[in-house]
Amino acid sequence: MSSAPGAGRRAEEGSSGEETILRAAIEVMAEHGYHGTSVRDIAERAGLSAAALYHHFQSKQDVLATIMERGIKHLLSCTRTALAEAGEQPAEQLRALVSVQILFHLSDQRGTLLGTSELRALQEPLRGRHLAKRRQQQRLFDQVVRRGVEQGVFTTGLPLEASRAIVVMCTGVASWFSPRGGISRKQIVRRYQRLALDMVGAS
Amino acid sequence: MSSAPGAGRRAEEGSSGEETILRAAIEVMAEHGYHGTSVRDIAERAGLSAAALYHHFQSKQDVLATIMERGIKHLLSCTRTALAEAGEQPAEQLRALVSVQILFHLSDQRGTLLGTSELRALQEPLRGRHLAKRRQQQRLFDQVVRRGVEQGVFTTGLPLEASRAIVVMCTGVASWFSPRGGISRKQIVRRYQRLALDMVGAS
Repeated sequence: MSSAPGAGRRAEEGSSGEETILRAAIEVMAEHGYHGTSVRDIAERAGLSAAALYHHFQSKQDVLATIMERGIKHLLSCTRTALAEAGEQPAEQLRALVSVQILFHLSDQRGTLLGTSELRALQEPLRGRHLAKRRQQQRLFDQVVRRGVEQGVFTTGLPLEASRAIVVMCTGVASWFSPRGGISRKQIVRRYQRLALDMVGAS
Repeated sequence: MSSAPGAGRRAEEGSSGEETILRAAIEVMAEHGYHGTSVRDIAERAGLSAAALYHHFQSKQDVLATIMERGIKHLLSCTRTALAEAGEQPAEQLRALVSVQILFHLSDQRGTLLGTSELRALQEPLRGRHLAKRRQQQRLFDQVVRRGVEQGVFTTGLPLEASRAIVVMCTGVASWFSPRGGISRKQIVRRYQRLALDMVGAS
């Protein structure tokens, strides 16, 4: 799973200077990678001096860590909210999970892909903490699929594998989706809900 | 889909100097990214001088292009062979495709992930050619799923979406699989064959 900054990130954080820097960092790093990007590159793209950037962030690593941490926190929070609103039925809960996972990752495709490709650049202990949060996200899916199997409404014999595959395929939408591809986000979500339900053997 | 150099790459190419360089490049780039890696870094990891590297490759871009091109060519070739050997039944063909897609990407996890994360670093026209080969690979899956639907042995109403999701979830195994995870490659393949057949509604 990736863990990009979602669109909702803006609402979460007050400082627009910080926001501008993070947005610029995602753009430049998506083009040149973390290691191919300097603090000066990020500052330039944000229309700031490097000194101004250091007012908000200690280092390039701090910028990356902020992008990654806000992304995964926002994803977890959206997912928990969607689950809470989805009612008691595992099938409805799975639909809600698929929808959040896809729409979150499509809300910022560049940031999402960065979350995947630059995870290796995140230093410990931040990397370990980040991976722990990803596992939490995966467990939200695992629990719904397991509950569906326990209640007999999902018939798959491979609940954990199905759950992981669903997360991977929904996250992966960000790697190929194009708004000019003739299919809307809403249609993608509906089709992936169907695929996910088929994979768990929903009755 | 990623397109890493598979293990079979070795047999394809004669020069062991080239092989050593490509292997070293995958290692260093997996750690520092394409843009964070210099020709000297690659040469050092390979135990060579930069001059010796330039004997084999024109540039760092040439190294990356060779890695990516060999990878996708090898994947396509393995996939076509597996399909030819799988017989006429769409279910058996889909099993064969799932097996190749997973085992290829697990044969070199670092190279695979590089194929995803550094695709952006590949310059045109190589990038376009690479993406065209990836689409060929996807079409091999699409054709099998479509044939299964036409023959009535797969019941999914979403053959193209299922086919893409299968490629993404099989490729994605390389992002989480660990040989120390208590489950073998063979078991993963069998389980994903089941998931893929469930997703296309195999009878």
